[in-house]
Amino acid sequence: MYHVIFHIDEKEKWPLVLGNVKNFMADHMAAEIEVLANAAAVNGYRSGAFIDQMRELSDQGAKFVACQNALNAQHILKEDLPEFVSVVPAGVVELVKKQSSGYAYIKP
Amino acid sequence: MYHVIFHIDEKEKWPLVLGNVKNFMADHMAAEIEVLANAAAVNGYRSGAFIDQMRELSDQGAKFVACQNALNAQHILKEDLPEFVSVVPAGVVELVKKQSSGYAYIKP
Amino acid sequence: MYHVIFHIDEKEKWPLVLGNVKNFMADHMAAEIEVLANAAAVNGYRSGAFIDQMRELSDQGAKFVACQNALNAQHILKEDLPEFVSVVPAGVVELVKKQSSGYAYIKP
Repeated sequence: MYHVIFHIDEKEKWPLVLGNVKNFMADHMAAEIEVLANAAAVNGYRSGAFIDQMRELSDQGAKFVACQNALNAQHILKEDLPEFVSVVPAGVVELVKKQSSGYAYIKP
Repeated sequence: MYHVIFHIDEKEKWPLVLGNVKNFMADHMAAEIEVLANAAAVNGYRSGAFIDQMRELSDQGAKFVACQNALNAQHILKEDLPEFVSVVPAGVVELVKKQSSGYAYIKP
Repeated sequence: MYHVIFHIDEKEKWPLVLGNVKNFMADHMAAEIEVLANAAAVNGYRSGAFIDQMRELSDQGAKFVACQNALNAQHILKEDLPEFVSVVPAGVVELVKKQSSGYAYIKP
């Protein structure tokens, strides 16, 4: 089984990232897929435009994660995030831990 | 022997990517090198400005690959690509497979 | 112990990269951390705005590295770099070597 973590730190890249995840799942539904958002990209979790598409991918098994450091910097509360988004203390640490445990890294 | 996959998804990044590949080959001619283009970057395979430089690097052993999903989205036919470009069904899957088999990942 | 290499090739990304390194070190002071700058990003090593923050992170153990190919292209001499910056012949080769020896890769 393949494991992959998609990294996004710019809000403008959400359409590209979500398209990438969709294409990946179309081919490999059984993979472990995580989307890790840090820096300004966490604002995408507050944007109506992307939530429906994210929820659909989440329902199909993709994990959506936000960086707590970034939420603090962007003044976003955990309670304001969609229910399918989980939070890690530091996005960069999550990226390293996942790669260390065998995840491939993709930065669209 | 080193293995590396360069990922490009923005057309504007072709000069940077090709410069990176050239620099890498100057130091490690024996490595396995793949350039994987998806999203809007596949348009670079239709652009006269880059083809000569790509062909030269291809002649020296670098592999140039296009994502079929991206070709579809950009309305580019496989027949329209230079003869040295190969096509994979999904660029993101190629990126994960290659990393899983030991390739380093670089996103210029 | 975790190992991570941060890749930067655009000068504008220095604030983001340095913030990422700071966040990583706040969580994992014991990790091996390298920041590899190539292309236009090596100009950041000449910019007063970032040097103090880099030196502080360097004092805490982060390694700052510049690509010689990029220094040549940007007409920067090794002697002009801060004393804590080391130079490698080719940044892309450094990125591959480090990943091959177990470093995670992050491109902010």
